[in-house]
Amino acid sequence: MVKQERAARTRHALIQSAAAVFAEEGFAMASLSTISRRAGVSNGALHFHFANKSALADAVEAEAAEIVHRITEAAQIRQGDSLQAVVDATHELMGSLAHDIVVRGGFRLAGDSARRGRRTLRAQWRHWVEDTLRRAERNGALAEGVSWADSARVIVAATTGFEVLGGDDASWLSRQNVTRFWEVVLPRLAGRQDLGRLVTAGSRTRAAASCRERSSLQTRSEQ
Amino acid sequence: MVKQERAARTRHALIQSAAAVFAEEGFAMASLSTISRRAGVSNGALHFHFANKSALADAVEAEAAEIVHRITEAAQIRQGDSLQAVVDATHELMGSLAHDIVVRGGFRLAGDSARRGRRTLRAQWRHWVEDTLRRAERNGALAEGVSWADSARVIVAATTGFEVLGGDDASWLSRQNVTRFWEVVLPRLAGRQDLGRLVTAGSRTRAAASCRERSSLQTRSEQ
Repeated sequence: MVKQERAARTRHALIQSAAAVFAEEGFAMASLSTISRRAGVSNGALHFHFANKSALADAVEAEAAEIVHRITEAAQIRQGDSLQAVVDATHELMGSLAHDIVVRGGFRLAGDSARRGRRTLRAQWRHWVEDTLRRAERNGALAEGVSWADSARVIVAATTGFEVLGGDDASWLSRQNVTRFWEVVLPRLAGRQDLGRLVTAGSRTRAAASCRERSSLQTRSEQ
Repeated sequence: MVKQERAARTRHALIQSAAAVFAEEGFAMASLSTISRRAGVSNGALHFHFANKSALADAVEAEAAEIVHRITEAAQIRQGDSLQAVVDATHELMGSLAHDIVVRGGFRLAGDSARRGRRTLRAQWRHWVEDTLRRAERNGALAEGVSWADSARVIVAATTGFEVLGGDDASWLSRQNVTRFWEVVLPRLAGRQDLGRLVTAGSRTRAAASCRERSSLQTRSEQ
């Protein structure tokens, strides 16, 4: 049991370390010895958990995909098939890109030419935005003359821009930046009956979210 | 003279080839022998023109920067400090990303972690958009309650998104996609007195632009 726990901890440290190295240096330049050194484990331990660099990148992307899935699912459970769900998920995703190295590393890999052709995080995000807006359109929640595809085009392009530009300048990922973006575009996307109810800063503050996350992490580490 | 001409042609072929290889494989993975083979020149000829891979990447970025400069300058000369200048330049830039390998390679290098920290094409584009919108705001051309910074945030983020997403799926760079983007966002950015006059598809068609470009290339090659 203790052995299993140690193995899980080592695997976790390796994924965190790999995500950081991939985010900074890209897949091609990332070296396995840098990753293991940064994780504080031996090369042998790395190879016990991961056959090669590609397997490590797969693990980073899978963990990032799981976090993105939790973000979109939580927004949808709270807000249904509405623009508010998309607004909320955007704030949470940008917060994760700013503060969670695994999400940042995962998206970095998604845009890496050495890793192209795989089903990427960007596609996962795009599909969720499109599906939610398709249902919002069916529910009559979009502005007249604006289709789900129009809304998705603006939101997917802008959030991809935030993600990419945020890699060099974190202010693109800030709550203030994302809120101001929504203040500008929401009046063109939302139906009149909904516009007054929509919260551009997200229906729950990021502070509340990060508290919840901290407490769930504590619960996990106490188990 | 004939020698100089041949040297210029070789240099041009190497920059085109390098741009293609950087666009496809990224800076770190690009090999000089692939670049010279693709350009149809010897390794020796490559090294006569460029000391190393970094010098080649600098040349690709410099040529792409020159093209972006020509695009923004032409839009500004025709349309002054207005939103139409930004609309036009966006169409031209996306057309160049779709059809000009040097522009595509240059932007790919701008987002490459192996090349970070340099003054990039993305910054050049961003500064031009910001400066033009700052002047548009001073001229009273923006909608009430929307600042130049608000407009720039949406436009820079979305066009960066188009550029990045267009690397995998060229439909993001299409005239139709860019036009539809402007149809959705312009009514929120433009002052009422200007809105009716703005052409979301660009004030001159891309077909006209590419004819002009072809004829200028012909003139150049005939000189």
